Amino acid sequence: MAVDPRPGRSVVSSDRHLEETHVEGARVFDGALLDVRRDIVRLPDGATTIREYIVHPQIRIRLMVRAPDAAAQLVQLRQAKPIRAIDDHRVGGRDVDAGESALATAQRELTEETGYIAARWTRLGLIHPTVSYSTEAIEIFVADDLTHVGRKLDDGEFLDVAQMTGEALLAALDEGELTDAKTVAALLMYFRKRGGP
Amino acid sequence: MAVDPRPGRSVVSSDRHLEETHVEGARVFDGALLDVRRDIVRLPDGATTIREYIVHPQIRIRLMVRAPDAAAQLVQLRQAKPIRAIDDHRVGGRDVDAGESALATAQRELTEETGYIAARWTRLGLIHPTVSYSTEAIEIFVADDLTHVGRKLDDGEFLDVAQMTGEALLAALDEGELTDAKTVAALLMYFRKRGGP
Repeated sequence: MAVDPRPGRSVVSSDRHLEETHVEGARVFDGALLDVRRDIVRLPDGATTIREYIVHPQIRIRLMVRAPDAAAQLVQLRQAKPIRAIDDHRVGGRDVDAGESALATAQRELTEETGYIAARWTRLGLIHPTVSYSTEAIEIFVADDLTHVGRKLDDGEFLDVAQMTGEALLAALDEGELTDAKTVAALLMYFRKRGGP
Repeated sequence: MAVDPRPGRSVVSSDRHLEETHVEGARVFDGALLDVRRDIVRLPDGATTIREYIVHPQIRIRLMVRAPDAAAQLVQLRQAKPIRAIDDHRVGGRDVDAGESALATAQRELTEETGYIAARWTRLGLIHPTVSYSTEAIEIFVADDLTHVGRKLDDGEFLDVAQMTGEALLAALDEGELTDAKTVAALLMYFRKRGGP
């Protein structure tokens, strides 16, 4: 399992009345992609219950900005929905190769998937998309000062690169067209750091 | 499987060069919580590959506002981390009882988990937390004009109710303490609809 991505404890004095303790656990499914674990935990009142969740390799993600343009352009990837019943707005996230840092992964994937290299990188922070049943954590980066060098997709990878301004992404959110939670969260983090609409 | 929560198609002319088609599929794991499906799909270039994902019952969520207060208070639930390596900031989301509408679920859960009833409800929209490997979709609501009537937790449910202003939630985001993607996404949707920092 990956390193504990938990942030520092918040300011609340004690969580003891909420905390549960691990009793035992086992891997119950080992799939092509998904690794499912089932634990028995003891609740604060002494009863036990089941926790079933996915142990996920940490995945990295990034938002990109073309600084040279007059209006900053947020570049995002479009990819056919990998599963049905899902919208097609997503910023590409990919598995981290063994031993690679989050930043190195973001840099490699930026070039492979979009064909750009960036002169400047800024980390916006970390988010957890699915706290209730997956250990997945996503790092958010901004890539500035892009130069196009040509992309190099993996076999079996099919995606477009779309350029949208922050305003256009917010309009898509308002219209209910942008529903990918990590992209929406990354947008707010971007605006907090850089200012914006 | 739940209804298709996909929003209307976006303005892109054609996605045919990105689309994959379903060849066959089967349930490969049926757990206490997680239902894993593995499909074979045909890629745009004719090759086939595996898609493994969770078929998730739709889950509802809501943010709450105490309108009577001078400064609008966003109420959110705190719950012990259901799995390890996860932060403890989350707005409660729960399974929808069979046949219940998203709004009815939000109303029931608001009272059960926080002890409030709300005179006014507004839907902010829908998000997908994990497009790459789960069909989960989350509805976001705002509950206004709250009255406290006392809560009624389910057995085995342990959580606190914390009251934070929008400013305090943004400060937690800036500090890297708020990492729950659906809460961050809901914050931006709230500010878009209601105005705010």
